[in-house]
Amino acid sequence: MWKHLGEQTIRFEAPPTILSAASTVGPKEGKGPLAPYFDVILEDVLWGEDTWEKAETKILKETIQRAISKANLDVEQIQYIFAGDLLNQLTATSFAMRDFKIPFFGLYGACSTMAESMSLGAIMIDGGYADYVIAATSSHYCSAEKQFRYPLQLGVQRPLTASWTVTGSGAVVLSKEGLGPYVTYITTGKVVDLGIKDSMNMGASMAPAAADTIINHLLDTNRTPDYYDLIITGDLGSVGKQLVIEMAGEHDYDLSKNYTDCGVEIFDATSQDTHAGGSGCACAAVTLTGYILKEMEKETFQKVLFIPTGALLSSLSSQQGESVPGIAHAVAIESQLE
Amino acid sequence: MWKHLGEQTIRFEAPPTILSAASTVGPKEGKGPLAPYFDVILEDVLWGEDTWEKAETKILKETIQRAISKANLDVEQIQYIFAGDLLNQLTATSFAMRDFKIPFFGLYGACSTMAESMSLGAIMIDGGYADYVIAATSSHYCSAEKQFRYPLQLGVQRPLTASWTVTGSGAVVLSKEGLGPYVTYITTGKVVDLGIKDSMNMGASMAPAAADTIINHLLDTNRTPDYYDLIITGDLGSVGKQLVIEMAGEHDYDLSKNYTDCGVEIFDATSQDTHAGGSGCACAAVTLTGYILKEMEKETFQKVLFIPTGALLSSLSSQQGESVPGIAHAVAIESQLE
Repeated sequence: MWKHLGEQTIRFEAPPTILSAASTVGPKEGKGPLAPYFDVILEDVLWGEDTWEKAETKILKETIQRAISKANLDVEQIQYIFAGDLLNQLTATSFAMRDFKIPFFGLYGACSTMAESMSLGAIMIDGGYADYVIAATSSHYCSAEKQFRYPLQLGVQRPLTASWTVTGSGAVVLSKEGLGPYVTYITTGKVVDLGIKDSMNMGASMAPAAADTIINHLLDTNRTPDYYDLIITGDLGSVGKQLVIEMAGEHDYDLSKNYTDCGVEIFDATSQDTHAGGSGCACAAVTLTGYILKEMEKETFQKVLFIPTGALLSSLSSQQGESVPGIAHAVAIESQLE
Repeated sequence: MWKHLGEQTIRFEAPPTILSAASTVGPKEGKGPLAPYFDVILEDVLWGEDTWEKAETKILKETIQRAISKANLDVEQIQYIFAGDLLNQLTATSFAMRDFKIPFFGLYGACSTMAESMSLGAIMIDGGYADYVIAATSSHYCSAEKQFRYPLQLGVQRPLTASWTVTGSGAVVLSKEGLGPYVTYITTGKVVDLGIKDSMNMGASMAPAAADTIINHLLDTNRTPDYYDLIITGDLGSVGKQLVIEMAGEHDYDLSKNYTDCGVEIFDATSQDTHAGGSGCACAAVTLTGYILKEMEKETFQKVLFIPTGALLSSLSSQQGESVPGIAHAVAIESQLE
């Protein structure tokens, strides 16, 4: 599985700057340990809309607009938007895009979407195709539970391996000009499926893909884990995090010191009843745009490897007895250029 | 709506060659007017699988493998796959990707996916990020009807504005080296929604986006419609095709001579009972990889503007009273470089 292709990683010659970042979260995330970092904390999950899906559309749209404002840009200056979400046919994103007259690439990478959008956005900048690009994603606990699991009203009990979909959105403006933090490398993931069929244990399903991408990134870049101040996966939660440490360890990479997972950090698992931790596209996106980038400003971290993880299942594939394929894309973010 | 941004179009400095193309279609498409052009015509829509979705996965996988074989390449030489389909969470694509150990970007552009995948694939080649990339998509009449409309077993009568989802898959290998045909320009679409709510009239929903992209392409490139031997949209069908001609005419572009739509060409609407015509991601993809590229080999066409069109609705958005946003991406394919 961990064959060194040497071509899975791109090093940018003209690394894009993350010019601005915006985050919006729901009330539960706003009571979690990362609360001080978020730009907007909603008081209720509907935010004045009459459905959860319309609320998610609004959350994504407002977060993108906030990122553009923070960058002191006009909407017209943004040349491309790369975005996606978890809903069937990207409902939240497609409808949010109606209000932006901007060329749009719709992405589906499940909860890995923030890395997919940043990777492609960074290519557009580095390759000279654009000066300003938006990379964004969203998820919503209620719309996701309704679609993937059970009606919320049933109050079905969740196993301890289950995770809690983050309500929120994260967006960044990537820019040709700027003083960093820079997107320096991307490592694009392959679909990895070790045959796990339990859709209530997504951490275990995605961990092999995360380990595969991290190991390939380190091999391709000839770096060791201690090069980074922080290595952080997207939404493996406590179960998947432990598996990644074990899998990397089998390949002599010690992740025990500087590695964590956004799903572990975003909730207090004990007091917030979130079991294995946070998940959803927004889990990695708001942890990046809130916590990680704000701590990079303070120089707590200078070199971060960000690896959002996606479980590529559908309700239908589970009903048809299929296992859960995983994917993970890595984005290296560094305050200084080498 | 048709503001000339001047930045919606990319002209490639090192235009990628379409090194090979493969097409697979179902039995109905194999009885249509384009039948002689397809590589593989299935005898039944299940192709030995026990569900339609698994059949679609197999169709996509085999088509990608055929494209790689036709290019005389090994799978290991392909550096990226850009692909997507219509199913929730890209079920067909995600599961097909398990068998390729290749970095993968999942896309959702509804029936515009072939242009989205070719656009991003072409950027990877032109930008120097890869030598060989796959762009592919699939759709399946049965899996799409089941998901978006009614159970097939009900035999619900369809209005004359409705289209027929094409069963099949198209894939191309894009290459840095080669003698053409070349991808010379891409024009990436914006989401356009004029408020049409009839999900049984997708042609009308998508026509404004198609017209918007075509007009912006012509403005950006300073070309007139007669520059091209063929201008062909993805799956507007007969209703949408007529609307595009009218909308372009209002902007003094005469599309009456060299413009058609893949959905109009792929079925014989009279004898095949397909009403407005073909639709689905595969409609544009197999018309390109079958008919268009094979006629380019024969020099029937030397300059083609290919504009797959997507209707970004979901069952849920329709149930919530939403209109149908459309998107269309244009890809210019030319036998010779200027």
